[in-house]
Amino acid sequence: MEQTPAPVWSVDPRTGERREQVATEATPRAVDEAVRAAHAARGALSDATVRAAFLRTAATLLDEDAARVVETADAETALGPVRLTGELARTTGQLRAFADAVDEGSYLDVRIDRADPSLSPPRPDLRRYKVPLGVSAVYAASNFPLAFSVPGGDTASALAAGCPVVVKAHPGHPATSELCASLLRRAAALAGLPAGVLAVVHGFGAGLELIGHPLVAAAGFTGSVRGGRALFDAAAARPVPIPFHGELGSLNPVVVTPAAAAERAGEIGRGLAGSVTLGVGQFCVKPGLVLVPEGPDGDRLTGALAEALGGTGPGVLLDRRIRENFLAGVGERAALPGVAAPVAAGPGGEHSVGAGYLSVAAGRLLTGGAYDLLLEECFGPVTVVVRYADPGEAASVLGRLPGNLSATLQLSAAEAEGAGGPAAELIRQVTEVAGRVVVNGWPTGVVVAPAQHHGGPYPAATSHSTSVGGAAIERWLRPVAYQSVPDALLPVELREANPRGLPRRVTGK
Amino acid sequence: MEQTPAPVWSVDPRTGERREQVATEATPRAVDEAVRAAHAARGALSDATVRAAFLRTAATLLDEDAARVVETADAETALGPVRLTGELARTTGQLRAFADAVDEGSYLDVRIDRADPSLSPPRPDLRRYKVPLGVSAVYAASNFPLAFSVPGGDTASALAAGCPVVVKAHPGHPATSELCASLLRRAAALAGLPAGVLAVVHGFGAGLELIGHPLVAAAGFTGSVRGGRALFDAAAARPVPIPFHGELGSLNPVVVTPAAAAERAGEIGRGLAGSVTLGVGQFCVKPGLVLVPEGPDGDRLTGALAEALGGTGPGVLLDRRIRENFLAGVGERAALPGVAAPVAAGPGGEHSVGAGYLSVAAGRLLTGGAYDLLLEECFGPVTVVVRYADPGEAASVLGRLPGNLSATLQLSAAEAEGAGGPAAELIRQVTEVAGRVVVNGWPTGVVVAPAQHHGGPYPAATSHSTSVGGAAIERWLRPVAYQSVPDALLPVELREANPRGLPRRVTGK
Repeated sequence: MEQTPAPVWSVDPRTGERREQVATEATPRAVDEAVRAAHAARGALSDATVRAAFLRTAATLLDEDAARVVETADAETALGPVRLTGELARTTGQLRAFADAVDEGSYLDVRIDRADPSLSPPRPDLRRYKVPLGVSAVYAASNFPLAFSVPGGDTASALAAGCPVVVKAHPGHPATSELCASLLRRAAALAGLPAGVLAVVHGFGAGLELIGHPLVAAAGFTGSVRGGRALFDAAAARPVPIPFHGELGSLNPVVVTPAAAAERAGEIGRGLAGSVTLGVGQFCVKPGLVLVPEGPDGDRLTGALAEALGGTGPGVLLDRRIRENFLAGVGERAALPGVAAPVAAGPGGEHSVGAGYLSVAAGRLLTGGAYDLLLEECFGPVTVVVRYADPGEAASVLGRLPGNLSATLQLSAAEAEGAGGPAAELIRQVTEVAGRVVVNGWPTGVVVAPAQHHGGPYPAATSHSTSVGGAAIERWLRPVAYQSVPDALLPVELREANPRGLPRRVTGK
Repeated sequence: MEQTPAPVWSVDPRTGERREQVATEATPRAVDEAVRAAHAARGALSDATVRAAFLRTAATLLDEDAARVVETADAETALGPVRLTGELARTTGQLRAFADAVDEGSYLDVRIDRADPSLSPPRPDLRRYKVPLGVSAVYAASNFPLAFSVPGGDTASALAAGCPVVVKAHPGHPATSELCASLLRRAAALAGLPAGVLAVVHGFGAGLELIGHPLVAAAGFTGSVRGGRALFDAAAARPVPIPFHGELGSLNPVVVTPAAAAERAGEIGRGLAGSVTLGVGQFCVKPGLVLVPEGPDGDRLTGALAEALGGTGPGVLLDRRIRENFLAGVGERAALPGVAAPVAAGPGGEHSVGAGYLSVAAGRLLTGGAYDLLLEECFGPVTVVVRYADPGEAASVLGRLPGNLSATLQLSAAEAEGAGGPAAELIRQVTEVAGRVVVNGWPTGVVVAPAQHHGGPYPAATSHSTSVGGAAIERWLRPVAYQSVPDALLPVELREANPRGLPRRVTGK
């Protein structure tokens, strides 16, 4: 006898009240059906023109229904209409950018080496491009109910690559997930594609079923270290392991040089407060550890930080579990001997939290043990200011950091101008532990652009691909070479006449 | 008290006798020292000009010492001077090709998006390229003592990427490994590089130490499914998982259409025998499963195969363990009910084996159970001929295959000319299960070329990269983006003036 599937509720984080029952958790059978339907839809996605049209129509439908999408997402996430309107624009922009990438075709990395019998050994005709991996599982994030959820970058890039997608919805915004899925499926129908190209499943168990399903060929994930690592392990332990592109956690260190603190203490303190509290601190690239020099310039910086944080009203976190984890995480860190809480992050009202920061001397971080907790991400509006005595101590702290999505340097005007010297060495040091290096800016605000990289050494990411920007499409593809295959039998992308006008590298050029 | 390290012997497979003691197995401490020395050498490898010179000098030194290298390798592997001379040329050609790739620089995938404040949201200056991962562990193969061993493709591509390498030597050719390592280290010294850029360790335990070492950042492997999977699992289970690029096993299916059999039965049978026995069947891409139509044309094909195999003299396998596994593997398969051995592979002399083939009706392969053994690679000079009644039955067998490095189609002249139709459908089917598709040729002979792909769905490979051809360099790199970094502080590869003249994609173009 099967159990009755558990109901999936949409909850208002501003009140903690249930809004509506959106769905039920997917049973193993329902997951299997979704994956099989997706698998059957692979052939339909093989036409690049159809895929591009599908992605553009999806963007159009999302834009046309913007009011409802933003209202639904706001009711479930409390992120506010301004932020969500911007996030929707980012999301539809991503869908269109991937449609353009499909048309342009350089992601196929077409390479052609024509036969050359004069070589030793003689070379046969070889032509290589990339083919889609198959059904892709996408695990949606809590903090971007659109841009890293059902219609987000993983879905858009996988569909662009020609991979049907089954999304494991985040429990924090099930109604938004279902609404977006219905719009994407409508777009699929308008493009002449079967509904199976995109499915949404709900529930923790469904997520585990999905990663173990033999027809699932790849996975993308944005979330916590604990959840992501469990899924990564499951993906690796399969009889046939699959790539797991997970974004798990990041401290996003900031280094403020003494010269920068002397020059711009107030500006840096205020900028830091803005970056830490943006979206109530719920960004993967929130600066979570800030190396500030000891002494009066550093004190001015923390003074400005304290003032700006104090002027920030309480904010509502995405859901109750995240709020509980935030309060527990701050409490645990503040309880460490030598850790001060000059502006205490904590409960705002019954459903909100106030922003704050912790402060600790760099030496503590070099002792390991309980202080390693300070080297773990604490999701929400808090950051850890680490006061260092000299550049050597700052470098020692950097050397203890796990991998990060970003690392930020605050440099003086002179340091930013000068090649060589301490700034160049800092760039080298943080490159070792980060996927993106920012100078005199803030890591929040990850623009969608061809040169973007949103990833980094573990646990920032479990693979070396990016989840933002054009290169994200690479995670859903594998190369295939064709040797001595007659032109008429070649995939159209590899034919001598190049009917699609694709960029190609011929004999390595 | 530490145990005395076990001696490592060079053994002549033609006689089974020990030639000399080459080294001792590496203790955990020795592995740690090798990895630390490699880690310390990373900075020295950061100069592209030096790396390219190193690789070219290594090629020169190997070529200059060709007689000794070939003689040593032959004495340990019995592969013969002709084959080994060719393999050495391939190996030094690879080293030079990767030096050229370093100079050319497109592997860095430089992308530049200049700042554009007119966009919404405004875009900061973003520049992305790829940086080396760090110390790379290379697990050498038995069957290519040069091209997939110490001086082989994994080592060459990792060094080209800027990664120091620690090779876990294959026990079948330790003297060749030490000789090549000494030449590579001499080349390093001539290029002004520390010896730590390349180390060789011996022993099973050393291989496990290596994959678990915190400073090892990536691994390449060519070998068996069992050994490769154990290392893959260890790489994934680390506190910080690392990419494991393993080539584990491949059946390399061949499909002979009825029309091709009617047209070229004798030629195909003889060609198959040649491909199966090349290098005494010890190629990763040896055709191990051949779909041949039932009926007289297929009978003529197997007749020609039998005649050609019967005319092949016994061959010496790489080492005793491989010989034992081959004989056991053939015996186990031949013992399955319904499996015939028209030409029985088996012991040749005391140290050699004779080539042969097994035959089975396609229907048996569709029953699963014990017959799944026929879907596993059997390393050595044997292949399994599967007789099929109709295209549907052949397609069903293809649908049961695990992933492969290659798949080969033997088509008639008319089928090879015609788009659409059964040949196009066969191309589609085998693309699903292979990394390289060959038409009217044989999979053995993997040329080194930019468009080559030597990989494929699991267990052919554990990642979607290639171990042969220019793209192999990608396995040792990760992207990093630089945001708003002043020109003087940027890595030279990303500076506006482009002093190295690197190919770059600016604003996606």
